[in-house]
Amino acid sequence: MFKINENYLKLPGSYLFSTIAKKVSAYTEANPDKDIIRLGIGDVTLPLAPCVIERLHKAVDEMASKETFKGYAPDLGYEFLRDAIALNDFKMRGCDISADEIFVSDGAKSDSGNIGDIFATDNKIAVCDPVYPVYVDTNAMAGRTGVYDQDTQKWSDVIYMPCTKENNFCPEIPSQTSDIIYLCFPNNPTGTTIPKDKLQEWVDYALKVGAVIIYDAAYEAYISSDDVVHSIYECNGAKGCAIEIRSFSKNAGFTGTRLGYTVVPHDLKCNGTSLHSLWARRHGTKFNGAPYIIQAAGAQIYTEEGKKQTKEMVSYYMNNAKIIREGLIDAGYEVYGGVDAPYIWLATPDKMTSWEFFDYLLEELNIVGTPGSGFGPSGEGYFRLTAFGSYENTKRAVERIVNK
Amino acid sequence: MFKINENYLKLPGSYLFSTIAKKVSAYTEANPDKDIIRLGIGDVTLPLAPCVIERLHKAVDEMASKETFKGYAPDLGYEFLRDAIALNDFKMRGCDISADEIFVSDGAKSDSGNIGDIFATDNKIAVCDPVYPVYVDTNAMAGRTGVYDQDTQKWSDVIYMPCTKENNFCPEIPSQTSDIIYLCFPNNPTGTTIPKDKLQEWVDYALKVGAVIIYDAAYEAYISSDDVVHSIYECNGAKGCAIEIRSFSKNAGFTGTRLGYTVVPHDLKCNGTSLHSLWARRHGTKFNGAPYIIQAAGAQIYTEEGKKQTKEMVSYYMNNAKIIREGLIDAGYEVYGGVDAPYIWLATPDKMTSWEFFDYLLEELNIVGTPGSGFGPSGEGYFRLTAFGSYENTKRAVERIVNK
Repeated sequence: MFKINENYLKLPGSYLFSTIAKKVSAYTEANPDKDIIRLGIGDVTLPLAPCVIERLHKAVDEMASKETFKGYAPDLGYEFLRDAIALNDFKMRGCDISADEIFVSDGAKSDSGNIGDIFATDNKIAVCDPVYPVYVDTNAMAGRTGVYDQDTQKWSDVIYMPCTKENNFCPEIPSQTSDIIYLCFPNNPTGTTIPKDKLQEWVDYALKVGAVIIYDAAYEAYISSDDVVHSIYECNGAKGCAIEIRSFSKNAGFTGTRLGYTVVPHDLKCNGTSLHSLWARRHGTKFNGAPYIIQAAGAQIYTEEGKKQTKEMVSYYMNNAKIIREGLIDAGYEVYGGVDAPYIWLATPDKMTSWEFFDYLLEELNIVGTPGSGFGPSGEGYFRLTAFGSYENTKRAVERIVNK
Repeated sequence: MFKINENYLKLPGSYLFSTIAKKVSAYTEANPDKDIIRLGIGDVTLPLAPCVIERLHKAVDEMASKETFKGYAPDLGYEFLRDAIALNDFKMRGCDISADEIFVSDGAKSDSGNIGDIFATDNKIAVCDPVYPVYVDTNAMAGRTGVYDQDTQKWSDVIYMPCTKENNFCPEIPSQTSDIIYLCFPNNPTGTTIPKDKLQEWVDYALKVGAVIIYDAAYEAYISSDDVVHSIYECNGAKGCAIEIRSFSKNAGFTGTRLGYTVVPHDLKCNGTSLHSLWARRHGTKFNGAPYIIQAAGAQIYTEEGKKQTKEMVSYYMNNAKIIREGLIDAGYEVYGGVDAPYIWLATPDKMTSWEFFDYLLEELNIVGTPGSGFGPSGEGYFRLTAFGSYENTKRAVERIVNK
């Protein structure tokens, strides 16, 4: 008899956002007349930028003619896109990353889940707490996390690094040695950032103990403060210890269009084996490239026009973030994030649990948010609101909260 | 120090098609004036169908307006696409597969590689020999194949089922018990099919010993013979033992557009655990859907217009197959496949090895094909040509072979 991967059976409940979707769906079915405002899942609402639309149309036309038709894409992604990425996202920020260290993919979720494939099962992972669920869940699927304790909501073999208001949501280097460290800045879910000197400490630590950092920079476009780094490769030595994951979802609204990339520097090695060669092998064997028309459209955001148009989208969302942030502060809430990230992280009032506050918002104010505890035990007592709604809905939601 | 997945280091050489690409590139660099005809990789050359292009443009326009913009896709894929698949690919062939048993993905390569995630490491896999390299390579990455022997070109823990002219390229049920069986019909690389009663024997065997069949039907659109099954679910009981993988790459020319799907029936269980729930969990955690515009375009091939236009594309390629097949037979070659599949599988002449014949074709006739031994030890002495070139190039290539 064939055997299943038993690790899957250890996973608690369902994926966070599926649970929320089910709860909301049950509520709206029972209350079809209610006007629900969704500030829960981090999904964008603005249409694609005009220059991206234009390029998509042009690329579609290329697929209509034998002379310009594109079949299988190159393994790492089209050179025109990787060149634009290397130049704009790295070289222009002083990071020495070359086009052949960039692997184009269908998004940061796939990459942050799949990257585990190239590591041994017995590595010890360390994650921020709270954290984007995909890091832990995919490691659990790979058998890297031990057993799950329903009471503590923790896995036995995972190092949790609490990020709470007590430490300014900045993880402290753990006393236990870790092998694979997941960091995400600007942070999902807390919306906070890490000072450059603190990130440098992480890089130094990783180099010292021989750890690898998986750096998720999906929200870098939302950074407005001058002193916040956009890439981990702005830190000295990071090419020897860090993989960086980027997304087109939030800066260019590609959540339903799907494009991302991962940087694996040639310098990153384990006893002489380059991680670049391993990821290249995985990429070439288990993936067949992002669609040509999407890669062509992605390159467009690096043109002058594309930069201007995507910046306007980011500004639109960050204006929403400001409205939420300031409204909640006025209403007496304790609020974090929302300055360099599209997420607002608030402390739940009156000692409510995260899910109690979720139910309260849904049932009393008809607003959907995300309970902090869904991101890990240290998220308990917090709640996430996103700035990705429309301006009108965001304003109405904040009014409901303020007027309550 | 972090540790890598050592299984990657056991993999021999590079992925077959990367090796070929490098050889061809070295030859063309040294001989820039030569007119190379590529009948190697199974990549299509015809542009997308007019109705697909039209739908792509319309979908792009939907992404340009706030009212019709699409963010994250539903976990399993859009219902409009899954409904069309369930109806046209299954119900209309008498297979009782429902839309919620269908998982839309970015292609059959990803799915056939990733499906291993939901199975335990200590399953015994059985593959046809020769075989599409992705099945074995991804199982090797997962640590399921033992050690590789350079001499025999076999992995110690893999059951190889020879498919040669001696058994009409139809695998025989192995004496050793297997847990996960990969079958692909119409077959890549041999271009041959399996009679329905033979496939039924495989289903019966799998049900009896508790094995699961991964059935790759990426080439089903090329079936012209009436008595060949298009889906394994045409066999009795297959829903209890088989996962089927499909692709839009070859029937609709989506190699560079990326769309596929996998069927995991609810009936398929291992000691009470449904594989559907495991794959749903993987899909929801490590993947974020195929782009909306691509899914919309994919649904178009199930319209009357789409069926007509894609059928014309298939006919075009199958005419090429006929030209190759008949030309080679006239030239005295021993030829298989090419009737219900876009691949022609020929026995190399004069006891040449597959790679010797590759070099001969490349250097003497400037034709690129694929050496049979690249697909497994029993592929030695065979060679694959594909019908995916243009009519003109196919004709010229066959003339070169015939006139030699």
